[in-house]
Amino acid sequence: MLQGKILVAQGGGPTAVINESLVGALTESRKFASVEKVYGALHGVSGIVNEDFIDLTQETSHNLERVARTPCSALGSTRDKPDAKYCKEIFKVLRAHEIGTFFYIGGNDSSDTLRILSEQAAAAKYPLRGIHIPKTIDNDLTVNDHTPGYPSAARFVASAFAGINQDNMALKGVYVGVVMGRHAGFLAAASCGCRSFKDDAPHLIYLPERDFNMKTFISDIKKVYGRLGRCVVAVSEGIHDSSGKPIASKLATAVERDAHGNIQLSGTGALADLLTSAIKEKTGIKRVRGDTFGYLQRSFLGCVSGIDRKEARQVGEKAAQFAHFLGRNGSVTIHRVGEYAAEYKLSALEAVAGKTKVMADKYIAKSNNDITAKFVDYLRPLLGPGMTPIGRLDPANRVRKILGK
Amino acid sequence: MLQGKILVAQGGGPTAVINESLVGALTESRKFASVEKVYGALHGVSGIVNEDFIDLTQETSHNLERVARTPCSALGSTRDKPDAKYCKEIFKVLRAHEIGTFFYIGGNDSSDTLRILSEQAAAAKYPLRGIHIPKTIDNDLTVNDHTPGYPSAARFVASAFAGINQDNMALKGVYVGVVMGRHAGFLAAASCGCRSFKDDAPHLIYLPERDFNMKTFISDIKKVYGRLGRCVVAVSEGIHDSSGKPIASKLATAVERDAHGNIQLSGTGALADLLTSAIKEKTGIKRVRGDTFGYLQRSFLGCVSGIDRKEARQVGEKAAQFAHFLGRNGSVTIHRVGEYAAEYKLSALEAVAGKTKVMADKYIAKSNNDITAKFVDYLRPLLGPGMTPIGRLDPANRVRKILGK
Repeated sequence: MLQGKILVAQGGGPTAVINESLVGALTESRKFASVEKVYGALHGVSGIVNEDFIDLTQETSHNLERVARTPCSALGSTRDKPDAKYCKEIFKVLRAHEIGTFFYIGGNDSSDTLRILSEQAAAAKYPLRGIHIPKTIDNDLTVNDHTPGYPSAARFVASAFAGINQDNMALKGVYVGVVMGRHAGFLAAASCGCRSFKDDAPHLIYLPERDFNMKTFISDIKKVYGRLGRCVVAVSEGIHDSSGKPIASKLATAVERDAHGNIQLSGTGALADLLTSAIKEKTGIKRVRGDTFGYLQRSFLGCVSGIDRKEARQVGEKAAQFAHFLGRNGSVTIHRVGEYAAEYKLSALEAVAGKTKVMADKYIAKSNNDITAKFVDYLRPLLGPGMTPIGRLDPANRVRKILGK
Repeated sequence: MLQGKILVAQGGGPTAVINESLVGALTESRKFASVEKVYGALHGVSGIVNEDFIDLTQETSHNLERVARTPCSALGSTRDKPDAKYCKEIFKVLRAHEIGTFFYIGGNDSSDTLRILSEQAAAAKYPLRGIHIPKTIDNDLTVNDHTPGYPSAARFVASAFAGINQDNMALKGVYVGVVMGRHAGFLAAASCGCRSFKDDAPHLIYLPERDFNMKTFISDIKKVYGRLGRCVVAVSEGIHDSSGKPIASKLATAVERDAHGNIQLSGTGALADLLTSAIKEKTGIKRVRGDTFGYLQRSFLGCVSGIDRKEARQVGEKAAQFAHFLGRNGSVTIHRVGEYAAEYKLSALEAVAGKTKVMADKYIAKSNNDITAKFVDYLRPLLGPGMTPIGRLDPANRVRKILGK
């Protein structure tokens, strides 16, 4: 039974719809008469040890709906990864505030935090109900068909490449777009989301699931450019050589790492610049441009998949329901049924925590530089309705040359 | 009178709504019984000399409406700047195809191309009616209150910074976003478009209208960071030192220039990386991130201002009407009336061609690192309706600490 004081927190990188999950967990919890209050911790677990709580029960419904539609974590986030000592501090605070249920909205690092916390709570005989609510634009959580946040980020990446495709047709050349994704290429693969004409971009897609080889990369680009007179490339920021060393880390003079040991890949244009320089040098093509999509892809105002918004709200609501009706710890997971609907389950924390899902082989083309039709089938329903359809002038209406140079 | 064969072309950097102008000029021209055909030249003036024409009269209305809503130049674009010899080639082709009217959709470089072409036509006694249809995301055309393409790009930049503001609140640090704009800061200034709470980003805005000084920049950031524990900065790619030398060019090992002598500023993350490195080094702040908005801001699918869409269509329509009813060469210009409506005039080509408008002093804060309330008044109506409103949790509902560390 869900009862007493509930605590909600958000961890890891923000998404476009993470506040939908916050509002879903809050509003659904409040439907149970046994729930006294719902607190929000500011900046994830760090807000718990600092007793930085907001009483969400005092929020107006109208404002909550507005918050739900605002991108990024309204409670703030953290990259902290609690160890045994850190967890002791958390227990002290949870005890003092008589909090019995903790909803943590986050990715695999956040679910691992919750797993450690649950173990520590059990060892300390503190009756903590812990439910992990999934989110991550990387789409790399196991068990889940996909994770809230990914569809909206995928919609951003697909929309960006749809526009870049038009731009690159108008002013020809080579374009490289670097997309987020450390270990999993789902987001870079979403660059294909709006392809419809035969020569539509991206023409090449490089994923961290495959080793990256500069010679093959240059040769691939030459082939496409020779055929179309242009070439648009999507590259995952996590691409690495055959020894597993990230291509981006080959450049960084001082590599920055977070508490989880992850090196900084985003927030710098270095990888795109390295790749465009190599292309210019090795192909002799003059107009070579590169963009790093950076933080825009996870926080851009107004680029949201309707499917994602709905599911993000529902995983929050289901967390409250599972806590009440099932009465056990776990991670809310999303499962695909039919063409297309989502079902929600409560899976064991251990099945999700700290694990990383990468793209299945069936989604990656044998050439290692593209995705398959199966991936398009997987992606399309997630992008949501209302994408602008692309129009082209009819090339059949070419006027016969008179001077005919 | 508008009659015979009409030619339309698109030049310069694409925008989100440039095809609205193409379709407007085409459909309005076809309303005049005296018009025989409307051709489109592929890739601007280069398509004329190569006789690369499409007969737009054979397009279906349904497809044209779809093309109008597709970002970037459907006819393709060019950076070519015709000289006397190039113009001679153009005349040959126009004569051969019996084209009497040329609509050129573009920025100040394209209007200058049309001015040169008009002079050459007059000298060669070729009866050419030339009308320039404005577009540029830089918003740097003289005479015009603003130019089609700017409102949508401004909406992109405002939406990006609205999201980045939330992201930076969730995970604190310093963020630098580099925005397009070589000589005019209008697009970087649009980063303020969604500011509503007192501490909303961007906290600092640097424009090419003012000299950039690295020491002042670092000191400005330290002040904001000291006050808020975070800092979001918008920087125009065209910022330069007191000698006029672009900060970006200080880095480039091999500077790339187009036919108009412009150096390449976009398509590389170098400026953002230079600035974030300097901030890290000089302030000791650890979490410093930078993004270069690059080509996304002019071509992103689905980020369009409704006002921009309407005006881009209308300047195309007005070009056909002015050519028919006024019967003289010129540039269609946009004028602001009331709060807010647009009026269209036919101005002399010489008033617009090759000239650059920069931001007026009244729009730039005395501190040189922000914009004024007058600029906000100027910008807001252009962004168009339907921006997602931002919601925040009420900070008044803080829970009293019990352990009170």
